[in-house]
Amino acid sequence: MPRQAREDIPVRRATPSDAEPVAQLLHDFQLEFDEPSPGTELLAERYEKLIRNREMTVLLVGDGPDGFAQLRYRPWVYSAGKNAHAYLEELYVVPDRRGNGLGRALLEEAIEAARAEGATHMELGTSESDTAARGLYESAGFTNREGSPDGPVMLFYEREL
Amino acid sequence: MPRQAREDIPVRRATPSDAEPVAQLLHDFQLEFDEPSPGTELLAERYEKLIRNREMTVLLVGDGPDGFAQLRYRPWVYSAGKNAHAYLEELYVVPDRRGNGLGRALLEEAIEAARAEGATHMELGTSESDTAARGLYESAGFTNREGSPDGPVMLFYEREL
Repeated sequence: MPRQAREDIPVRRATPSDAEPVAQLLHDFQLEFDEPSPGTELLAERYEKLIRNREMTVLLVGDGPDGFAQLRYRPWVYSAGKNAHAYLEELYVVPDRRGNGLGRALLEEAIEAARAEGATHMELGTSESDTAARGLYESAGFTNREGSPDGPVMLFYEREL
Repeated sequence: MPRQAREDIPVRRATPSDAEPVAQLLHDFQLEFDEPSPGTELLAERYEKLIRNREMTVLLVGDGPDGFAQLRYRPWVYSAGKNAHAYLEELYVVPDRRGNGLGRALLEEAIEAARAEGATHMELGTSESDTAARGLYESAGFTNREGSPDGPVMLFYEREL
């Protein structure tokens, strides 16, 4: 069966009024991966403000909505433009809609949206154990190798402050 | 010999007038790791603007200066405040000054600076092969494991757009 073409899966840009369903999706994402959530109410407040102030781009897929991608931009020293660097902060599809190309549609639209903003580079972090996500990112041209395809693996570190 | 205390190594905040030496350090960093550089002139222009507009915090160590750390902040959905999330974008010490605690002094000051901005979380990417950097980050409380110390490794992915 051929891979479903992106054009068949509409992806739309979230507006401030989508803050509640986006908050619910992130909340579910956190709980599914045993990560803490500040709760849907606080999340919705923050999404509303961040989307309204254009500090964040959120893309939605499906009627639920059933998945979302979240992009941040920043100016960068390696290339020109105020949105030269794009960071894919979140990408999530609800469990019962996985395997239908929704994640790929979100990722492809995220790349297009970032290009339209003038971004020249995109980064993201993911878990070694999330083979579905890694397969998606690698098939979309992302690498976790430094310098060349057989270069050292790039690692993601974090700490609370 | 005891580790040199941070207080012995002054770290200062770069101003727009430091843009040229910071550009030189990043340029040298890129060349040392066989990565492309836009050149010191373009880099200095961009640093000048980003530091002046407070879109970037740069910390400097040593008289050369001999090293720098570069921080970016962004609002986050997981906690409150416009600078809730700190990203350590670069950390570099010139080769002939390594092993003297300059990197540690920069990192500790970066953590303090981020806390002072209200950040609750810091992230960074590094190479699996850079064992000195990884040792520094891990000894400063950073983890590249998801959820728990024996959780899956977190990977950093990138692509050009």
